Amino acid sequence: MFEASLRVIFGDTDQMGVVYYANYFRYFEFARSELLRAKGVSYRQVEALGFALPVVDAHARYLAPARYEDLLTIAIAVEEVRRVSVGFRYEIRRESDVLCTGETKHACVGRDGKVVSFPDILLKAFEPAVPAA
Amino acid sequence: MFEASLRVIFGDTDQMGVVYYANYFRYFEFARSELLRAKGVSYRQVEALGFALPVVDAHARYLAPARYEDLLTIAIAVEEVRRVSVGFRYEIRRESDVLCTGETKHACVGRDGKVVSFPDILLKAFEPAVPAA
Amino acid sequence: MFEASLRVIFGDTDQMGVVYYANYFRYFEFARSELLRAKGVSYRQVEALGFALPVVDAHARYLAPARYEDLLTIAIAVEEVRRVSVGFRYEIRRESDVLCTGETKHACVGRDGKVVSFPDILLKAFEPAVPAA
Amino acid sequence: MFEASLRVIFGDTDQMGVVYYANYFRYFEFARSELLRAKGVSYRQVEALGFALPVVDAHARYLAPARYEDLLTIAIAVEEVRRVSVGFRYEIRRESDVLCTGETKHACVGRDGKVVSFPDILLKAFEPAVPAA
Repeated sequence: MFEASLRVIFGDTDQMGVVYYANYFRYFEFARSELLRAKGVSYRQVEALGFALPVVDAHARYLAPARYEDLLTIAIAVEEVRRVSVGFRYEIRRESDVLCTGETKHACVGRDGKVVSFPDILLKAFEPAVPAA
Repeated sequence: MFEASLRVIFGDTDQMGVVYYANYFRYFEFARSELLRAKGVSYRQVEALGFALPVVDAHARYLAPARYEDLLTIAIAVEEVRRVSVGFRYEIRRESDVLCTGETKHACVGRDGKVVSFPDILLKAFEPAVPAA
Repeated sequence: MFEASLRVIFGDTDQMGVVYYANYFRYFEFARSELLRAKGVSYRQVEALGFALPVVDAHARYLAPARYEDLLTIAIAVEEVRRVSVGFRYEIRRESDVLCTGETKHACVGRDGKVVSFPDILLKAFEPAVPAA
Repeated sequence: MFEASLRVIFGDTDQMGVVYYANYFRYFEFARSELLRAKGVSYRQVEALGFALPVVDAHARYLAPARYEDLLTIAIAVEEVRRVSVGFRYEIRRESDVLCTGETKHACVGRDGKVVSFPDILLKAFEPAVPAA
């Protein structure tokens, strides 16, 4: 899995003293952007080409709380590429502790908001980091 | 289902011109709080009694985008009450359009963070709004 | 002053057990939108006409903390209308306690991002709620 | 000035296509945490000692918009240390462009929420990065 890392800020916590549950989805998104960038594609560029990848499904399992100042690793893998949708899988860790796992599924839409096939630039970015032998 | 309503602010949107996907989980939480309050229980009171309801699982399906200034209805139902966990089901609508559906599952923990049985005050609040005949 | 009201959600708090300081600016924005809407103008409509009101200056003084579940009143007044900028003044209260005061200043820009004069629809909306006798 | 850097995520933007104005205050906080950590103090540690630094005043000037995927530098300087309050000054840049400047002022409070003198650990952290000759 590709890995991005991020420091939890105070504004991400809630009064339970842990990261607010919705904010893990922000961390997922951060990892998605970093993954694309690592593949030489910026999502900004994808938008400039007239495409967007709206989320159609998002899921998280909370195993242990992330806390203020934690340095988190957000691991991400492309799970499933279909003609007009793509799935990502995530694992958020603090050192070796897995705090959260999740998945998101995205459609590919064009400027008119209608579902279209992925452009090549994205198909390439979705290829596994280490291609199967 | 119990219903709460809420106006989308500019700060909830992202540059796609729609509500950012993580923010629907904020809306879910708003409906949870409102449901408890409607049952005469405030979550603040639950915390004062030494209990907390951390989210252990959260899931959303995005059917159509919510936009700035939309007046949303967030419908919520208690789905499943077990001894130490409870599930909620959500439906976010703009007028008759269903924009998002989802579920969250919560544990009940005491001051030491260990799982405990729900206090009576919560069990009562989780009873169906309109009891079956 | 025009008044809007809003319930603090859990996601607005931080681990100090109070509303995170940046979120008061979200509350200010909520009051701005509600003020315009009360004057018969939606900001969405302003954008559709090709105008935007980007914030150029924002300031808040924190007098006492707002907490989860507080029902807040956000009072807003148009402070100063110049040819291409407008100032708003805010006061956030819980019952009679003033928790936060602040100001924002906004430019008026057109589709190309350049500063322009306010359209009439906005000038009217900026008029005092109760005109001086 | 001490400098921290951060990548803008999609969730930080709004439908104007730029970073939402409240989120710059999150960036300020990120730089405050990083500054303390660079001085060998974690804010978590400060809290464990029974102290907190609530914001009493926050101000930002928006000169040019930050955008999705921008790599921002958040420069911070300790501006003024009094017996029970401290001021920070910020400058957010994208390469050599200054996008936003601001200030925050913080009180020092103890466990009971009352104003107290700064503990030595903080006074040391507030000393200039490069001491005057």
